[in-house]
Amino acid sequence: MADRRVALVILGLALVVGLAGDACHVAASTTRYEWDGVPSVWRSAVWFPVALSLSVLGAAWLSERAGTVAVRVRTRADAVAGAAVVLALYAVTALLNDVPATVSVVLVGSIAVAVWAWWDPSPGALAVATAAAVLGPLAEIAVVAAGASSYGEPVDGLAGVAPWLPCLYFAAGAVAARLWSAIADPG
Amino acid sequence: MADRRVALVILGLALVVGLAGDACHVAASTTRYEWDGVPSVWRSAVWFPVALSLSVLGAAWLSERAGTVAVRVRTRADAVAGAAVVLALYAVTALLNDVPATVSVVLVGSIAVAVWAWWDPSPGALAVATAAAVLGPLAEIAVVAAGASSYGEPVDGLAGVAPWLPCLYFAAGAVAARLWSAIADPG
Amino acid sequence: MADRRVALVILGLALVVGLAGDACHVAASTTRYEWDGVPSVWRSAVWFPVALSLSVLGAAWLSERAGTVAVRVRTRADAVAGAAVVLALYAVTALLNDVPATVSVVLVGSIAVAVWAWWDPSPGALAVATAAAVLGPLAEIAVVAAGASSYGEPVDGLAGVAPWLPCLYFAAGAVAARLWSAIADPG
Repeated sequence: MADRRVALVILGLALVVGLAGDACHVAASTTRYEWDGVPSVWRSAVWFPVALSLSVLGAAWLSERAGTVAVRVRTRADAVAGAAVVLALYAVTALLNDVPATVSVVLVGSIAVAVWAWWDPSPGALAVATAAAVLGPLAEIAVVAAGASSYGEPVDGLAGVAPWLPCLYFAAGAVAARLWSAIADPG
Repeated sequence: MADRRVALVILGLALVVGLAGDACHVAASTTRYEWDGVPSVWRSAVWFPVALSLSVLGAAWLSERAGTVAVRVRTRADAVAGAAVVLALYAVTALLNDVPATVSVVLVGSIAVAVWAWWDPSPGALAVATAAAVLGPLAEIAVVAAGASSYGEPVDGLAGVAPWLPCLYFAAGAVAARLWSAIADPG
Repeated sequence: MADRRVALVILGLALVVGLAGDACHVAASTTRYEWDGVPSVWRSAVWFPVALSLSVLGAAWLSERAGTVAVRVRTRADAVAGAAVVLALYAVTALLNDVPATVSVVLVGSIAVAVWAWWDPSPGALAVATAAAVLGPLAEIAVVAAGASSYGEPVDGLAGVAPWLPCLYFAAGAVAARLWSAIADPG
């Protein structure tokens, strides 16, 4: 598949997962958008799906270009499964507002580790997942500090964002690490 | 395995999943049976497990006869895993009475898509899953309209049935699509 | 890998899963430790992680020595996935304090069966899982009867322990049955 089409498919997948997952967070009051007058798409301020999709595409493209070696070869059907599993975990986090942080972090963290070990238990995917687990929450902490959005009170314990947020980014990063090759796969 | 034994095993599996899943729905007040004097099996009115098992058997037999092509060959152990995963999703839906519909539909829907992509990501299984996602809820809407059963108030938003119901049927239909060949499998 | 190192890795994995899972149970008031003056590790009284790790090691070593035949060959990456899935299920049980026993038992039980059917659907792993599902809760019933710990009131319906406890031990036992060969695996 031509590179441009691979990129478009990844953007599309990331848009669907990001919009549906964020709609869960807004519906459950896990997160709130704070700026008035920003156009919205479904339940998200327009900048969120744009930033998320470009980040996923960047992570997928960089892992492919960096030539990190996959332990498991993933296909397009696997990409659907991987995106669906990340979205399911995203939706699960919307159920955890009244749960002690110990429980929510262990739950989301252990599923995130299982996603990495299932999808591609390689050092390369681990590196991308770890980078996502650090950079994603840092970016959201900056967004919250700027006043553009906020997490609900019971789940803002990690510098304004949810304590399980690094785990959710870890799972998304692990899948993103092999998304390019999975979509480009001929069959 | 002889066709009659395959059919009996499928009926048995569907009975176990249907009765245990429905017991969860009744225990959680997700659903209620409204007619008095109907004999019950565990927590279900007797007609429910009968109708469900025959529907699963019909779906499994029709997909086999229609000669739809599987992408993944499934074994008897896989059939146990598939049935267990559908039952787990059934039980999860009994936890979602107080959850916004956006969250419950995204959660059950993404898991259902992951089940299809894991179990058999083929167009044939997609067709059976989609048919189940349409016909199953339509049948339940008719049952509710007839007054035989009802969904609890917070989850009756889809013409009297739960908004996540098509997603649950989708997952069950995807697995049913390859149940016949999985059970008939020699090893 | 030398036997001593395999044993140490298994002890380490079991310690992480046991401590993190038990921290969830204590944080959610699923369980309580009742004896004062016992040193604690994270949220557990010190005897719990010791007893659990040695039991997991014993189960893993005995299944290996007994020569039970695996249907699926598991690797070290699979061991990480297996341990993470058991820990996720452990954390899920900490969410079920207000859920009817029918729902919690069906949910944890169906996931436990799926874990066995995924990890190693062999008679040997089924035997180890079943033994764990019997012996683990019996040991905990004795501990509760001795007054060392207790389960919260809504989940103490099985002779003082939670009704879903045998299902959680079943999943852990199924994975433990092939942990030795998975860790010893050359690559």
